[in-house]
Amino acid sequence: MSYTAPIKDMLFVMNELADLEQIATLPGFEDANLDTAQAVLEESAKLCGEVLAPLNVEGDRNPSSWKDGVVTATPGFKEAFRQFAEGGWQGVQHPVEYEGQGLPKLIATACVEMLNASNLSFALCPLLTDGAIEALLTAGTDAQKQTYVPKLISGEWTGTMNLTEPQAGSDLALVRTRAEPQGDGSFKLFGTKIFITWGEHDMAENIAHLVLARTPNAPEGVKGISLFIVPKFLINEDGSLGERNDVHCVSIEHKLGIKASPTAVLQFGDHGGAIGHLIGEENRGLEYMFIMMNAARFAVGMQGVGVSDRAYQKAAAYAKERVQSRPVDGSAKQPVAIIEHPDVRRMLSTMRALTEASRALAYVAAGHCDIAHRHPDEAKRAEHQAIYEFLVPIVKGWSTESSIDVTSLGVQVHGGMGFIEETGAAQYYRDARILPIYEGTTAIQANDLIGRKTVRDGGKVAKSLLASVAETVGLLGAQQGQAFRSMEKYLAEGQRSLGAVVDFVVANTKGDPNAVFAGSVPYLKLAGIVLGGWQMARALLAAAQKRDEDQQFYGAKIATAQFYAEHVLPLATALEASIVSAKGGEGVLALSADQF
Amino acid sequence: MSYTAPIKDMLFVMNELADLEQIATLPGFEDANLDTAQAVLEESAKLCGEVLAPLNVEGDRNPSSWKDGVVTATPGFKEAFRQFAEGGWQGVQHPVEYEGQGLPKLIATACVEMLNASNLSFALCPLLTDGAIEALLTAGTDAQKQTYVPKLISGEWTGTMNLTEPQAGSDLALVRTRAEPQGDGSFKLFGTKIFITWGEHDMAENIAHLVLARTPNAPEGVKGISLFIVPKFLINEDGSLGERNDVHCVSIEHKLGIKASPTAVLQFGDHGGAIGHLIGEENRGLEYMFIMMNAARFAVGMQGVGVSDRAYQKAAAYAKERVQSRPVDGSAKQPVAIIEHPDVRRMLSTMRALTEASRALAYVAAGHCDIAHRHPDEAKRAEHQAIYEFLVPIVKGWSTESSIDVTSLGVQVHGGMGFIEETGAAQYYRDARILPIYEGTTAIQANDLIGRKTVRDGGKVAKSLLASVAETVGLLGAQQGQAFRSMEKYLAEGQRSLGAVVDFVVANTKGDPNAVFAGSVPYLKLAGIVLGGWQMARALLAAAQKRDEDQQFYGAKIATAQFYAEHVLPLATALEASIVSAKGGEGVLALSADQF
Repeated sequence: MSYTAPIKDMLFVMNELADLEQIATLPGFEDANLDTAQAVLEESAKLCGEVLAPLNVEGDRNPSSWKDGVVTATPGFKEAFRQFAEGGWQGVQHPVEYEGQGLPKLIATACVEMLNASNLSFALCPLLTDGAIEALLTAGTDAQKQTYVPKLISGEWTGTMNLTEPQAGSDLALVRTRAEPQGDGSFKLFGTKIFITWGEHDMAENIAHLVLARTPNAPEGVKGISLFIVPKFLINEDGSLGERNDVHCVSIEHKLGIKASPTAVLQFGDHGGAIGHLIGEENRGLEYMFIMMNAARFAVGMQGVGVSDRAYQKAAAYAKERVQSRPVDGSAKQPVAIIEHPDVRRMLSTMRALTEASRALAYVAAGHCDIAHRHPDEAKRAEHQAIYEFLVPIVKGWSTESSIDVTSLGVQVHGGMGFIEETGAAQYYRDARILPIYEGTTAIQANDLIGRKTVRDGGKVAKSLLASVAETVGLLGAQQGQAFRSMEKYLAEGQRSLGAVVDFVVANTKGDPNAVFAGSVPYLKLAGIVLGGWQMARALLAAAQKRDEDQQFYGAKIATAQFYAEHVLPLATALEASIVSAKGGEGVLALSADQF
Repeated sequence: MSYTAPIKDMLFVMNELADLEQIATLPGFEDANLDTAQAVLEESAKLCGEVLAPLNVEGDRNPSSWKDGVVTATPGFKEAFRQFAEGGWQGVQHPVEYEGQGLPKLIATACVEMLNASNLSFALCPLLTDGAIEALLTAGTDAQKQTYVPKLISGEWTGTMNLTEPQAGSDLALVRTRAEPQGDGSFKLFGTKIFITWGEHDMAENIAHLVLARTPNAPEGVKGISLFIVPKFLINEDGSLGERNDVHCVSIEHKLGIKASPTAVLQFGDHGGAIGHLIGEENRGLEYMFIMMNAARFAVGMQGVGVSDRAYQKAAAYAKERVQSRPVDGSAKQPVAIIEHPDVRRMLSTMRALTEASRALAYVAAGHCDIAHRHPDEAKRAEHQAIYEFLVPIVKGWSTESSIDVTSLGVQVHGGMGFIEETGAAQYYRDARILPIYEGTTAIQANDLIGRKTVRDGGKVAKSLLASVAETVGLLGAQQGQAFRSMEKYLAEGQRSLGAVVDFVVANTKGDPNAVFAGSVPYLKLAGIVLGGWQMARALLAAAQKRDEDQQFYGAKIATAQFYAEHVLPLATALEASIVSAKGGEGVLALSADQF
């Protein structure tokens, strides 16, 4: 078994939780109804299941390779990328005027999940290209858009993001790459960029590098960073490719996972200067980069969902096949499939519950993004944009942190076989480990959640979401059964804990920043657990209504929601305790560095 | 930086928590006082830090290799093993009459931790040899002991445990390897064993395989399994090595981690039969194997502690060196070492707190084992043996599950560099992943904790430990300061949660086994968190008394205990909720397998 896209689960979330119906009433999205969504998902599932998923293990065994500056992708990737591009999959959510399909982000998000579930390494190339497209659409000139965007959408070219330098990881204030104006509107760039995903490869004719650099006399720190576009091959007036530009891949990294995705060290300007053009205004590069990053962060969150689902599918299949030991309740004298053993079920249920909750939260976020872009009412747009932006660091941070636990459980379900590389479970565990790191570590996401998303508006968005959670808790009370009782109890407790922590963060970030930031990641996880639990509660309500239509499917939704309530939501109070106890500053923050 | 054994921390635990002083009063341990312990630890630290730790990364890059049935260890390992053997390190805890050093397990445990911290793959060879020695000492004839034990202790030979077969992982009832009596007291063995750690190698002259097999007409299931010793080379009357026996390594596994440790597939009897001798009585093999396994399970728990400490040391060193971003409290205008950032501190403190707590619990368990073996009073021996046996699955399960989290945090502290293999943090993450699997998965440990250790005596040992925890909570109340307030509050809550779960387990295992076993691993983790927290509370009390002697050291102990109280112990109530909510059987256990 490889990967089967969970289309029914995806459509359930889109319909019941993310309100696809309402989104299909927005201007420009009139065709984006349930039928369209289903058709798109089915096509995407074919490509992902049949072409990309089988290449995943191949990429792990035969990583992209570097020789004399040339990077060759894993055998099969180039042809697969051609199929991906020809199917129009790069353009799902991009504007029709640039040859995109103009579909809602909600539908695109399901496609992105499939892409990542089937092949995390492969999916990174379109992920970065999406970021480049977003940045160009936001800040590029018309000519730049016309030159680059259709080529990026068609897959003839791909895009990259060049932020990190050897001395500047998360801290972009330290960027040193310089851009010297040539007097003709172009610049020459000089510097070294590291960790550039798909920074060099042979799957496309050209690569559009988006690069952060400093112009002469730019202010120090992040206010002196500009964004440039530096193509691998220069582009002639007529759009054809010209000379090779002076940007070269000097090595690629030897990594724990996502081995098929080349992680390049790029050298700009070692042979006279890499020719680039400014995107938008000088010194506003960080702002534009954040546009790319918000899209990319959300997409990395989807990587967490995707790899979690893949690991779950593999573990569930193994647990159904592998026969070992008699059941603990004595119901059979012979060994049974290990899925009958309670702890295996607990592990699979944990994997499944975390995957479904993180999927639901992400899709709901995508729906808010669509409304934020297309709603006719400006106030509505702003309101939904604020919710989307609040959710992005949570989707990114929580889905990816969860994916570590989920893929680790996936190995555990396989027992000793899980540790053998041939089995394949270990690859997900290795691949997933980068997700809470790149595009901003979980701590960076948590800082964003505290600073820009919670404190800046005095907790307004957070509290509006908490009020919605409370409403859902109210609805649970009207229903019968243990699933509702557990969800009501633990979601209410979680809602209270998250509320207390939001108050704590708003009240103390200025006065006692170390105490608040010591609880930053626990706050992010708490928000993920409670808001994910909220979606599971909404799923529970929806599934209970439809149960008679399809006992198999909706019964599983109800059981999974109950499991989430009883096994995941109780962590909320523990996280609250750890966060608010930091107040006062005693404890570990008081130690000197050399006591570690 | 490589590895520096934390001798001061180890001696603190041995003295203050595991009562080395009392153990040194036991018959036969009169020389095992603090001075001896310190001298032994310092010598062990030299070998581990200088010889074994540097070979750890070498083993990852140049794993043991197989060719035509011959396994060659990683370059440097053979020479290192010679130094290990000549130093007498295999014999630390084994009897003087067989050339061992006869020291308490408590002291040996610190040596075992160092060995594993420095080189997990290397340490597995002595770990398995220890198991073989234990089994021979328990069930072997005098002649067998004389033939094998001194050679195993001297390191001329090594030992293995052969349980698993392709169709029989955790379920030994399925063992099919057969042993046919030859009429001269020997047997011929036929069958395939997999996952045999150090099952073939070139570091010693001979390998003593301890093998589970069935004699003709043996009863089915686990009651028909006997234990045999099958040497790689037959042993002549005079003790010299004779012919090559018919046991051959047909392949070794390609694994996620511990790559230097060859994991062999052994074929017994393909060329006429592998000659072996029965150990102890026929059909009692499983019982003897449990003796080896109890020792080995405890030792694997120490692997968890060791790799956690190694990962912590590496992460702390990196965090002190790596300069990135300004402090969140605005206390500096320039970027600072990342150890100054609150979330990095939270991660390091989590790593440290879990490592210290799991170390303390394991050493305390080792102390009970020593009393159980040497106390003159039989009732005392039985009492301490029962406590030791209760703690073994917790030490094994909890320390190793924690090591997954700790090594994962170790990668995270390194940021993007953590994902690059050259950095070395990823190796610990990969290596650690086997620990909750081999020598019995965490679920197997949890079943043991429930069945043999909790239900069989009606919760008696568990409750005696809970009473001791309550006493410690009482002592905390008399002390001033936030560390004591937090510890008092959360340890009391944890004690109550663990007590409630023990009652739940005792009351329901017979009537509702599926509900209880669905919470088996959460129960094990809860027990680890609370009993580990108990040790942290005892450490807090001891450190507060000595604070003025060494503010740097004891101040850190106090802060770490407070961190544990506030960040780890609150999980206890969440685990309780998830365990007791399984009662009733609704939820995931009610689903059919095909709903997964």
